[in-house]
Amino acid sequence: MTEFSTHSDGEQTLMNLVRQLYPICRSITGNGVRETLKIAADWLPLEIHEVPTGTKVFDWYVPNEWNIRSAYIEDMAGNRIIDFKDHNLHVLNYSCPIDATVDRAELENHLYSIPEHPDWIPYRTSYYTENWGFCLTQRQRDELADSRYRVKIDSDLEPGSLTYAECLVPGESDHEILVYTHICHPSLCNDNLSGVAVVAALGKALLAQPRRRYSYRLVLGPGAIGSITWLSRNQSNLNRIAHGLVLGLLGDDAPHTYKASRSGTREIDMVASYVLKQRSSANRILSFSPYGYDERQFGSPGINLPVGRLTRSVNEGYAQYHSSADNLDIVSEDRLQESLGVVMEILDSLEENRYYRNLEPYCEPQLGRRRLYRDTGGTRIADREEAILWLLNQADGQTSLLQIAEKSSIGLHSLAAVASELVDSGLLAENIIDHGAEE
Amino acid sequence: MTEFSTHSDGEQTLMNLVRQLYPICRSITGNGVRETLKIAADWLPLEIHEVPTGTKVFDWYVPNEWNIRSAYIEDMAGNRIIDFKDHNLHVLNYSCPIDATVDRAELENHLYSIPEHPDWIPYRTSYYTENWGFCLTQRQRDELADSRYRVKIDSDLEPGSLTYAECLVPGESDHEILVYTHICHPSLCNDNLSGVAVVAALGKALLAQPRRRYSYRLVLGPGAIGSITWLSRNQSNLNRIAHGLVLGLLGDDAPHTYKASRSGTREIDMVASYVLKQRSSANRILSFSPYGYDERQFGSPGINLPVGRLTRSVNEGYAQYHSSADNLDIVSEDRLQESLGVVMEILDSLEENRYYRNLEPYCEPQLGRRRLYRDTGGTRIADREEAILWLLNQADGQTSLLQIAEKSSIGLHSLAAVASELVDSGLLAENIIDHGAEE
Amino acid sequence: MTEFSTHSDGEQTLMNLVRQLYPICRSITGNGVRETLKIAADWLPLEIHEVPTGTKVFDWYVPNEWNIRSAYIEDMAGNRIIDFKDHNLHVLNYSCPIDATVDRAELENHLYSIPEHPDWIPYRTSYYTENWGFCLTQRQRDELADSRYRVKIDSDLEPGSLTYAECLVPGESDHEILVYTHICHPSLCNDNLSGVAVVAALGKALLAQPRRRYSYRLVLGPGAIGSITWLSRNQSNLNRIAHGLVLGLLGDDAPHTYKASRSGTREIDMVASYVLKQRSSANRILSFSPYGYDERQFGSPGINLPVGRLTRSVNEGYAQYHSSADNLDIVSEDRLQESLGVVMEILDSLEENRYYRNLEPYCEPQLGRRRLYRDTGGTRIADREEAILWLLNQADGQTSLLQIAEKSSIGLHSLAAVASELVDSGLLAENIIDHGAEE
Repeated sequence: MTEFSTHSDGEQTLMNLVRQLYPICRSITGNGVRETLKIAADWLPLEIHEVPTGTKVFDWYVPNEWNIRSAYIEDMAGNRIIDFKDHNLHVLNYSCPIDATVDRAELENHLYSIPEHPDWIPYRTSYYTENWGFCLTQRQRDELADSRYRVKIDSDLEPGSLTYAECLVPGESDHEILVYTHICHPSLCNDNLSGVAVVAALGKALLAQPRRRYSYRLVLGPGAIGSITWLSRNQSNLNRIAHGLVLGLLGDDAPHTYKASRSGTREIDMVASYVLKQRSSANRILSFSPYGYDERQFGSPGINLPVGRLTRSVNEGYAQYHSSADNLDIVSEDRLQESLGVVMEILDSLEENRYYRNLEPYCEPQLGRRRLYRDTGGTRIADREEAILWLLNQADGQTSLLQIAEKSSIGLHSLAAVASELVDSGLLAENIIDHGAEE
Repeated sequence: MTEFSTHSDGEQTLMNLVRQLYPICRSITGNGVRETLKIAADWLPLEIHEVPTGTKVFDWYVPNEWNIRSAYIEDMAGNRIIDFKDHNLHVLNYSCPIDATVDRAELENHLYSIPEHPDWIPYRTSYYTENWGFCLTQRQRDELADSRYRVKIDSDLEPGSLTYAECLVPGESDHEILVYTHICHPSLCNDNLSGVAVVAALGKALLAQPRRRYSYRLVLGPGAIGSITWLSRNQSNLNRIAHGLVLGLLGDDAPHTYKASRSGTREIDMVASYVLKQRSSANRILSFSPYGYDERQFGSPGINLPVGRLTRSVNEGYAQYHSSADNLDIVSEDRLQESLGVVMEILDSLEENRYYRNLEPYCEPQLGRRRLYRDTGGTRIADREEAILWLLNQADGQTSLLQIAEKSSIGLHSLAAVASELVDSGLLAENIIDHGAEE
Repeated sequence: MTEFSTHSDGEQTLMNLVRQLYPICRSITGNGVRETLKIAADWLPLEIHEVPTGTKVFDWYVPNEWNIRSAYIEDMAGNRIIDFKDHNLHVLNYSCPIDATVDRAELENHLYSIPEHPDWIPYRTSYYTENWGFCLTQRQRDELADSRYRVKIDSDLEPGSLTYAECLVPGESDHEILVYTHICHPSLCNDNLSGVAVVAALGKALLAQPRRRYSYRLVLGPGAIGSITWLSRNQSNLNRIAHGLVLGLLGDDAPHTYKASRSGTREIDMVASYVLKQRSSANRILSFSPYGYDERQFGSPGINLPVGRLTRSVNEGYAQYHSSADNLDIVSEDRLQESLGVVMEILDSLEENRYYRNLEPYCEPQLGRRRLYRDTGGTRIADREEAILWLLNQADGQTSLLQIAEKSSIGLHSLAAVASELVDSGLLAENIIDHGAEE
């Protein structure tokens, strides 16, 4: 474990970060990940973890580390037809080294293209089965007319380590909100440099806050094997996770989508659904399914944490998904900032969603003598008075502010502000509820 | 406590009672309340309770008693411009005494009118903040052109007592159905002489019944402080309240509205919803909210009684609300009688909503030999036979007749009649369920 | 108890069985029932039970046995106007013997016809009230112009026994699926020779299966008194019944209708609803009601078994119901076969609806090294992979395959097949749930 933080030039916009990270060839292990985390550390302090190849993580083993220097297909005259230098998607991610002359039929077995999008290079991987391959546009593939080609992939697939990073932002309580984003994809912007950028900016924003009820743990790691590794290494501390969010795909032009935790009825599910519905009727709430990103692991039956997922498009939900067309053109600063705003609002709402007990529960207390009610009767109640009545009526210590917001149609933020006043007046007291992972 | 019953001349119609009570200036305390209860006692025997000023009732204290003899605004030439004699709404209810000459700017701070209804006098109060004031039409206000006026309010605001009345109609059981209506409003007909009239007629009708399962406790008291006082003084006996209804606003031309108890799932909620839906699809069922009439107190978290509310319009739900236009023209005998009918049907349904146990629960009993089934098979079942089958099938001692009515689409009254026959046949036995206030 | 099996000539089609049974005059007791069961025994081995008249069965007594030789109405000239030989519906089922000359007015008290269908003979019974009568077409009735007629019914109504039959098809477990159909109706095809034929074919099909998880108990008995008798005699073994179906009315042209068990939430309810909804959106799911066929007894409060009912039309749901028009024309081989298919699919689904536990519940297990997942990442998941993920995610030992099918929209059969593979791979283990009748 080493801690570092470097500084880059230029304005710290989310798009600048995306642009900085875009050319790097990442995978589930290797130097591309390390370089990515070093750049992200300009935004938030990161604790880097290296987990050696072969480490058992639940049912898996950390794989060999992959690094690549170059890869190309040449015709027999030495003309480079496909070159990793042109686009890092051109190589099948995790390809083993090869240097051979192959006939076209054999080559075809190692080529990947997208017939319906003839100008796009697909993103394909072979992490756990040793293989080599090239991804290319359909047009490039159609032009391969020779009988033999030379293929060369100069890569290493050897014992090393898997790299992930954590940023812990301490709060008043040891209960944590976990945020996870995957960092394993190479030159793909929405999936998932958008997630990396939003998490970087989120860490910076949280650290700038004067006061937080929860602690926040932001984890940047590879997809699947990364969250499996993290869960395996942190198994004894999972009960500190009160709520969690997997973030990704946050820069495209789709409305926001919340995918619920496995149980579907945890506080994060209620809060995220509330925030998304309040913001726009175009936003979508999906129930849990076991396919997608790292929520698969957080929602496995033996783990079953209250972790939902926030994206714009869902996985496979946009045409450019897992292709070279998921490039800088389909994400924008505005949309990344808006996504950051949604995440912050969900987290703020979790912070605000407290439980209170009415200390004068027998009939209404006399609000007038506490200057909490209008002097002249007979007129319509004010919004603040209505919020006071709802809070006093519902504050039984077991009903959250969010539940009161849903019943009363009064906004959570307004209720939280009024609840705070009622605590000062001695009419309410907070009831601390244990947010452990146990249901 | 004194008990009295006086007799008035004239036919006992609900409108005659409303007309008799209309001119009296009522408030949350004072002689107007006592005079009102004396007139109501022509209909039902009332036990009058006087609770001294300063008595602590939960978080409140019984306020000083208010009585008023006269009030007016004169111009400096001695012309009376506004006079309490013309309409008792002209004075801010609970105004402290004043006799002063004030300039127009100061006077304006003590005036209340309704710009959007320039011919109506608003109803305004200042019970718990000592103040004086006049309510007047917007037209009257617009004509105030002088620079100085004389204001005189000849009122007392002094230690005395708060007055409320109870009528207990005993039944076979000690379990009570509580009915509460507020008597504090001065010359306002729908809100709430309609409620007073319906409760008076209800008491008379209940007393005329030969047999009642429940005891009934009708309480007439001031709004808010009245129910708070009653609850405070009866706290040790609240578990005898099986069901309750707050009544008010029962004479206007809106369809009926049931507002559920705080829990929303108590027997009174099921029964009242059933009756209202059966009677008219225009009737409305609202969930609980902590703003309105005395259901606010019955539904406070420390009290939490199964008390709903029946009105026609809801509070603030009609234009004339809390103004001089809430007069004799907007209530009618027919509508008051219809409201009385709805209340009686809800109470009758509560009486009928019993629980039965099937004494021959293993397969259907042989109904034919008990003369409970048709002799000739092969034809369509009769309605009564269908009711018998439903009752026998569902009577497990824990399912109410109302639940069977909802499942079977057979009317509650029909089921109750057939259940009675089946008890006589030895096939059913009533299962007495404790209706205590505990959930 | 005797066991027999005879063999008839001709092809074993369901319609041939219906045709063979159609002419027989059946009732709730008597030789018509015995003859019917003898013919059914060509299809499946039947254990015949004879329960003596007078035996107490819960609240009932087994009635006298009824047998009839002839019945007619003659005019005084000796012309037979109505003759049981023409149609066995002509006699009121269970008529006591009579041989008398009656005037027309008295005769009219003993006649049954259907004015709205003047050419149809109604089906009427008088099992538990001693009576005699004739059923005839309205046209026949309208022609009765004479003042006196001779009526003769040559029947026996004497101590004997009630007959029912059982076929037990043993499976791996003692838990049974009960199937009941009524055999008491005379010449009526849809109600219920269709049920008899489907149960006969079902028994044959079950016996031909190599392997069954459940045991199956098929019972053919008279309506009402038959299931009452069976339940009374088997009361101590009812906890072996895991699921049950009452079958009947399976040959007409209506879509299928499932009527839920009394509780409405038992496994048979979930499975039957799922199968019917999957097969056709025209199929109907009804909640329980205490009127209909033998589900009335299985769903009585003291019995309360998880027994639903499958029909096409419901009782009284088609014009020809309980009349001579319920004849061979309104049932067809195709529709009977389709009904058999629905029953088999429900039973197969019950067989398949097992519970599994994920043996590697911490994160996803590594499917690739078990050859359960595609090698190349980045592409869309295959259906089988999706099924694997759903099964692993939901298999907590308490969630049935059907519940996973509903959540995932993957078919139950597909899930069952994949679950079986995962058991072989060591990733899932079956969790045996006790299906006893207790809720």
